[in-house]
Amino acid sequence: MMRGSRIVNCLCGAILALTALAVPSVLRAQDGYDLWLRYAPLDGEALERLRRLDLHPVASDSDASDPTVELALNELERGLAGLQNAPEEIPADGTPIVLQCDSDLPGPSGHYAVQPYARDSAQGIGIWASEPIGCLYGAFALLRALAQGEDPLTLNLASAPAMPLRMLNHWDNPDGHVERGYAGRSIFDWWRLPGHLDQRMIDYARANASIGINAVVVNNVNARAEMLEPRYIERLARLADAWRPYGIRVYLSARFSAPRDIGRLDTADPLEPAVRAWWQAKADEIYAAIPDFGGFLVKANSEGQPGPQDYGRSHADGANMLAEALGGRGTVIWRAFVYSAEDDTDRAAQAYAEFVPLDGQFADNVIVQVKNGPIDFQPREPFHPMFGAMPNTRLMLEAQITKEYLGFATHLAYLAPMWEEVLQSDTGRDGTVAQVIAPAGMAGVANTGSDRNWSGSHFDQANWYAFGRLAWDPTLSSADIAREWAAQTWSREPATLDTIESIMMDSRQAVVDYMTPLGLAHLMGTGHHYGPALWVCDLARPEWNPCYYHRADAEGIGFDRTATGSDQLAQYAGQVAARWQDPATISDDYLLWFHRVSWQHTTQSGRPLWDELVYRYDHGVSTVDSMAARWASLEGQIDARRYRDVSEYLAIQQAEARWWRDASIAYWQSINGLPLPEGSSAPAHSLEHYQSLTFPEAPGDT
Amino acid sequence: MMRGSRIVNCLCGAILALTALAVPSVLRAQDGYDLWLRYAPLDGEALERLRRLDLHPVASDSDASDPTVELALNELERGLAGLQNAPEEIPADGTPIVLQCDSDLPGPSGHYAVQPYARDSAQGIGIWASEPIGCLYGAFALLRALAQGEDPLTLNLASAPAMPLRMLNHWDNPDGHVERGYAGRSIFDWWRLPGHLDQRMIDYARANASIGINAVVVNNVNARAEMLEPRYIERLARLADAWRPYGIRVYLSARFSAPRDIGRLDTADPLEPAVRAWWQAKADEIYAAIPDFGGFLVKANSEGQPGPQDYGRSHADGANMLAEALGGRGTVIWRAFVYSAEDDTDRAAQAYAEFVPLDGQFADNVIVQVKNGPIDFQPREPFHPMFGAMPNTRLMLEAQITKEYLGFATHLAYLAPMWEEVLQSDTGRDGTVAQVIAPAGMAGVANTGSDRNWSGSHFDQANWYAFGRLAWDPTLSSADIAREWAAQTWSREPATLDTIESIMMDSRQAVVDYMTPLGLAHLMGTGHHYGPALWVCDLARPEWNPCYYHRADAEGIGFDRTATGSDQLAQYAGQVAARWQDPATISDDYLLWFHRVSWQHTTQSGRPLWDELVYRYDHGVSTVDSMAARWASLEGQIDARRYRDVSEYLAIQQAEARWWRDASIAYWQSINGLPLPEGSSAPAHSLEHYQSLTFPEAPGDT
Repeated sequence: MMRGSRIVNCLCGAILALTALAVPSVLRAQDGYDLWLRYAPLDGEALERLRRLDLHPVASDSDASDPTVELALNELERGLAGLQNAPEEIPADGTPIVLQCDSDLPGPSGHYAVQPYARDSAQGIGIWASEPIGCLYGAFALLRALAQGEDPLTLNLASAPAMPLRMLNHWDNPDGHVERGYAGRSIFDWWRLPGHLDQRMIDYARANASIGINAVVVNNVNARAEMLEPRYIERLARLADAWRPYGIRVYLSARFSAPRDIGRLDTADPLEPAVRAWWQAKADEIYAAIPDFGGFLVKANSEGQPGPQDYGRSHADGANMLAEALGGRGTVIWRAFVYSAEDDTDRAAQAYAEFVPLDGQFADNVIVQVKNGPIDFQPREPFHPMFGAMPNTRLMLEAQITKEYLGFATHLAYLAPMWEEVLQSDTGRDGTVAQVIAPAGMAGVANTGSDRNWSGSHFDQANWYAFGRLAWDPTLSSADIAREWAAQTWSREPATLDTIESIMMDSRQAVVDYMTPLGLAHLMGTGHHYGPALWVCDLARPEWNPCYYHRADAEGIGFDRTATGSDQLAQYAGQVAARWQDPATISDDYLLWFHRVSWQHTTQSGRPLWDELVYRYDHGVSTVDSMAARWASLEGQIDARRYRDVSEYLAIQQAEARWWRDASIAYWQSINGLPLPEGSSAPAHSLEHYQSLTFPEAPGDT
Repeated sequence: MMRGSRIVNCLCGAILALTALAVPSVLRAQDGYDLWLRYAPLDGEALERLRRLDLHPVASDSDASDPTVELALNELERGLAGLQNAPEEIPADGTPIVLQCDSDLPGPSGHYAVQPYARDSAQGIGIWASEPIGCLYGAFALLRALAQGEDPLTLNLASAPAMPLRMLNHWDNPDGHVERGYAGRSIFDWWRLPGHLDQRMIDYARANASIGINAVVVNNVNARAEMLEPRYIERLARLADAWRPYGIRVYLSARFSAPRDIGRLDTADPLEPAVRAWWQAKADEIYAAIPDFGGFLVKANSEGQPGPQDYGRSHADGANMLAEALGGRGTVIWRAFVYSAEDDTDRAAQAYAEFVPLDGQFADNVIVQVKNGPIDFQPREPFHPMFGAMPNTRLMLEAQITKEYLGFATHLAYLAPMWEEVLQSDTGRDGTVAQVIAPAGMAGVANTGSDRNWSGSHFDQANWYAFGRLAWDPTLSSADIAREWAAQTWSREPATLDTIESIMMDSRQAVVDYMTPLGLAHLMGTGHHYGPALWVCDLARPEWNPCYYHRADAEGIGFDRTATGSDQLAQYAGQVAARWQDPATISDDYLLWFHRVSWQHTTQSGRPLWDELVYRYDHGVSTVDSMAARWASLEGQIDARRYRDVSEYLAIQQAEARWWRDASIAYWQSINGLPLPEGSSAPAHSLEHYQSLTFPEAPGDT
């Protein structure tokens, strides 16, 4: 809104001269809906260059009628119009962008090459692919480069996906509640489907395609059996039809007890012929409606969900039964996130113990989905020991895009550095985690919701984006992804980009520091996971209690996972275990994850553990303060609405980082009786105050 | 998206000539978020005229610093920029729009005058008001006229609100669920308040101000006591601060038992001193945070809600106690929607019986809020007999904007004709209903939600709009409002407007006809109110059962409310009762509401009742078919997204109208054994089929 002079003394007075000022386009109100696909107008040389070239997309005769190729052409028109701040129209002549989508370019499904070409006196940009979806991915790649101001005549964007499945897992219930969702209600409007398809379903598919995501599980892994009933299959079919041109296949989370719940059988035993027949018929019914249905995701015998062990059968028995029902048509994705209600061994050890002995027993169309770490999406965990330990089983990585344990949507935490850390971990067996999962893929627990900006916060869009980019190419650096995302989302101004990139790159370590420093884990409020609850120790199952994880007493703190303790460390390859074996040499990042040490233990920093712990809390808090200050320096560089949205969230994060730090220190002091290191301030309130806080309205609970 | 030719044979082939075509601005993608405030570019003479005038808003020195005046200036700049398809900037010269917001123009709060003026050689447009809010309303009135293509130099828009309270009631729970909401989740994001104020809260206030709404109850009348706790007061204060410049005061629904629920008292008896002190302290606490807090809305002793009768006290005792706590600062709005669990007299008679004897006993700052009809927001009811019957009490009209009983968001039903029917009803006592409520106001149960288009459907925006316009001026015609809304929302093309107006004006009667023709009522699915359930007769309380309302058997159908029946008709003034007294002369619209008649009774149409009933069902269905056909004729005249959205909803409505018609006829035939009139087709399915349908996922339930 303009703030020119617009005052007049009264009706009879003179009208003052008013100054004409246009709002720079970069500052026009943004609500975040456009994600990284804003195509905000270029300026300077990049704009001149584009206008000089006058690009226009064309496709060969044989391709042009394909709906995916049509999407690619539309996207290029839309993007070029936006970048040039021009009406969306096809110029009469100029430089063609030629899509050749049935070329003999070799590579896995989805690969493309984007390059300038010159032939005789004509020049153009070519997008080569061997399938329409490659052309669509290539179109997005070209626009991504142009949106960063690159010169189309110097591009060479040949690329291929590193893994076949690049998947989102939605923990969305059919009633609209999203488990661990912090962005409002589910984006899936089942009630109005199939009669009405919300435009958001198209925009969602487009956003996914722009980063190479090609598979979507639409419902919560804590599944309701009714999702398999005909009325949902009919609704899902309309989604599948809408998403197919974007290269996205739909999957369903399947409740293992469905034959009993909705099938009128009295068992769900996977070896029972009637059960097998029920699933076979169900699969046939789904494929009749959705010929390219992707398959089932299953959470079985985990946190109360039904599964094959209810009948004395193994995970392989259960998975293979479903795999047979799907046949060659689809894939069973079986989650390895299991820990037993009766087993009082180290929770971090249980998935490996249950699954590794089954290596080689799973059918070819089964993938086992393993979380990045052995506990549960903590701010930092070592990589899961199953990676590399099942050479005869396809393993898929499950990451959490929604920030269940990292401050919900209101904390700025860019997660790509965490995923990069995991993907590049050397398993000591079969290469890096990225190499282990290459034959299968990556699944990310989605952070989408009905909030206008999709993710509940503008910066959480970066986590969706980075997940897709890393699933396509796990060798990308998190810093490069941050910068490329920010340039498309916020601003191309180099100084602004520097600031945003620095905020993002500091953010995840800040959360680790103010919540769970030095390898601590799972100290969040029980149930909803909001805020600190280090002191909780009275819940029925041991691993529901924060005290189970930190094990602090007057002498020391930490979980001994070496041979003197749970020996979970032995699940890792020897060279990896060796690196973490000795509390004197292990990285401080994992110290209390693997070791129980005294409060006086000397850390890698040279400081005693207690001093280092307090230092980390203080560092986490001061980093968030600094992030807020850096963001404040961008006022005027960012459109006002998003600037204010982020500022308000950072203020919340500053307050909550202090809360975490103060409550944690107050609790540790009640345990160890130690004074604060010099220069560190006392908690603002008593421990009793922090313990008295309750949050019945915390969002996203189960 | 352009569909020019864009085919090339191959990379080595010739690039075909491509045609440049711009998308007309009227057809640019619209998602409905902008409501009636699109300010879509004018064209032709209207555009030329505006550009020639080069209008620019200015305010006098003394006004310009007022935040409401600033909003008015901003809105004018935004609107003028949109209408002229120009950047939002202040021109250097041209014709001023001069806001004089402290003039001596007489009138009630909010009034304004908008007129051209000429003084010496200068001409301009003046907006006169005696308060800033009048200037804001005047600015919206001017833009409304300009957006319809009117000539600013011929305007004369002096106007004043007909009633002081123009209010929305949100049935939104603090957890985000909206009772009877069909547009997604609540727009109120309590979790992130007060730290974060969503832009939607500003856009919401702006939309309300544009139609004169000046009061908002933010939470459900089925209230949770925690809304009165400090954490919610703090959140509400931020909303109040944000809405204040838009002239909107916030109100809370108060749970009558709050002193017990959250106040640690063991009673909520309104005559108990500790209870009175608790409410006094609570009111003081709220006013300390929100100096212009509007007051409390109370649903007491109604449908299980607590109230003064729990302690043997009257509604007046309860209301007056709260009124005293508010003092001169605010208003208690006490709902008259009561019907007793123990009372087996006619439900339609109970509110009158309970409240009319209390006339004159309510404190000055109490308003009694009365639904438009004596049952509950049915597609058609006669006006409520309390209107005119309590001359010494301020009565407020409660209308339902959300379509609980009119097909949810997926049925197109324009409600202004219904409200017009009520407002213009002569009570036979104190003038029309509009005149009775003039000292108080109108409340509308909001239809807003997290859906991008706010209302769940594009056409339901019209109901929000029309509610505000009628509360400002109940003498406006529903057809005029439809046209003015459509011109701002859809298109200014006269033929298109004719079609949209005709669809809207036919729509409510269509719903009456296919759901509850001839004065029938409350035949919807029990609980969720989705679809037909005429046959339900086994629920515990009589008035929960559709059979209670239709009373059909082999002999006849209808509810006898004359002296031979419940005698509820006697609650109306004599001249009104006389009009409805005789089944031979009463309008068919109210026939079965007031009378029980035989299936052969001759209706006003000349047809026997059974034939007329079937005729009405068929007419309802054929009207919806015609609405869909009329809408289809607009393809290409409406932006593609909204065109498709409405088309899909109309297809759902066509199917559901048939379902209502077929299920109803199947049921009546099972009761009366009569054959269908000639030419009328048999239901598509058996009655058993319709009875077997269940809808566990129907939205909006309590």
